[in-house]
Amino acid sequence: MRLYDLAGADAERRFSPYCWRIRMALAHKGLAAECVPWRFTEKEAIAASGQGRVPVLVEGEHWIADSQAIAEYLEKTYPERPPLFGCEGGQALSRFVTAWTDTVVNGALVRMLVLDIWRHVDAKDRDYFRASREARFGMSLEAVAADRDARLPAFRASLDPVRQVLAKQDFLGGANPLYADYTLFGAFQWARCISDYRLLAVDDPVAAWRDRTLGLFGGLAGAAAGYPV
Amino acid sequence: MRLYDLAGADAERRFSPYCWRIRMALAHKGLAAECVPWRFTEKEAIAASGQGRVPVLVEGEHWIADSQAIAEYLEKTYPERPPLFGCEGGQALSRFVTAWTDTVVNGALVRMLVLDIWRHVDAKDRDYFRASREARFGMSLEAVAADRDARLPAFRASLDPVRQVLAKQDFLGGANPLYADYTLFGAFQWARCISDYRLLAVDDPVAAWRDRTLGLFGGLAGAAAGYPV
Repeated sequence: MRLYDLAGADAERRFSPYCWRIRMALAHKGLAAECVPWRFTEKEAIAASGQGRVPVLVEGEHWIADSQAIAEYLEKTYPERPPLFGCEGGQALSRFVTAWTDTVVNGALVRMLVLDIWRHVDAKDRDYFRASREARFGMSLEAVAADRDARLPAFRASLDPVRQVLAKQDFLGGANPLYADYTLFGAFQWARCISDYRLLAVDDPVAAWRDRTLGLFGGLAGAAAGYPV
Repeated sequence: MRLYDLAGADAERRFSPYCWRIRMALAHKGLAAECVPWRFTEKEAIAASGQGRVPVLVEGEHWIADSQAIAEYLEKTYPERPPLFGCEGGQALSRFVTAWTDTVVNGALVRMLVLDIWRHVDAKDRDYFRASREARFGMSLEAVAADRDARLPAFRASLDPVRQVLAKQDFLGGANPLYADYTLFGAFQWARCISDYRLLAVDDPVAAWRDRTLGLFGGLAGAAAGYPV
């Protein structure tokens, strides 16, 4: 298997929240994949997937885009390996965690991290990244990130549902992680890989969960190029 | 089985979002329970549960409080009946939907509905309800509800993760509802039972899902005393 994985100017810096979901899902299933460094502007390399964003997983003739679709492909293709969803109902409910993370968590984080991301992207991606994101936000990257301290309390408060769950179990998936954990973890790994901004208070149960997840699979995510948390 | 179920001045008006979760969960399992009307101040009637809020389910010697705990009790006690969670992983993930609903949805709704609730509670509950809620909010019920029109857009936006999921499946649980659906549905049924305030645009996919859920089990929730939606 081959996974196209977003990389920065430093090819070892892999910082896509969506790619990290799949890196973790592959490890969860005990599957190896070649993680090919990919930059934002290398659209032709993944054209066979029918779109222009990563993660893209290639297995034989199959090109699969979109992290949720890839996770569901892995679950269907390798049912005998540790489950990512637990059951059909678990898969359906996992989609809510994904939708919530995409909307609430990643939606808030991108505003806090966008300037840090720009500083780490490959030289050939810098103009593309700045222009596309400034068009999306309708302002300069510097202006988007300027008020992140003011946004931080609301971001932390938005994680309250996670804290409520973690008060009763170690992972969103229960005693052990499921794909839903990797969905949310991708957000914090994204941050850790490209920013030294402290998103979570050190005594936040969400930070403890993140640290547990950094340690999974022999410390796979914790060993990745990034900043201390 | 006996379920203590919050009632208003009109004993037929059952308006607890948490009790509705269990009404729906019982119907999902095909279980009958006597729904005993209960008012906020009737603490002694449920003292055997060790706390003072409903829902409380009584089966034989078991007194179970807290909607999530009751749902998990029903799943464990009646595993041969239709599952509320699908599997252990589904149960764990369902807790996130519950925590999100409690925090984000019910937390916003109570501010929009609190004056309507007060108008419908039993005469003997009115002073208790007003005093306890005004202490919680630090202002009069009228002041809490006064800006609800201004809050409505943010409330609707907070439902975006639900919309994303419903774009791909009919229920949070997938093709068919699971307990997670009843968790969120309780919020809208609460609103419908005590308020004519229009929370959702008529073309909102969340409204279509609510209406599907109102029709489940022979229209159980749709037939309950309330306002048109």
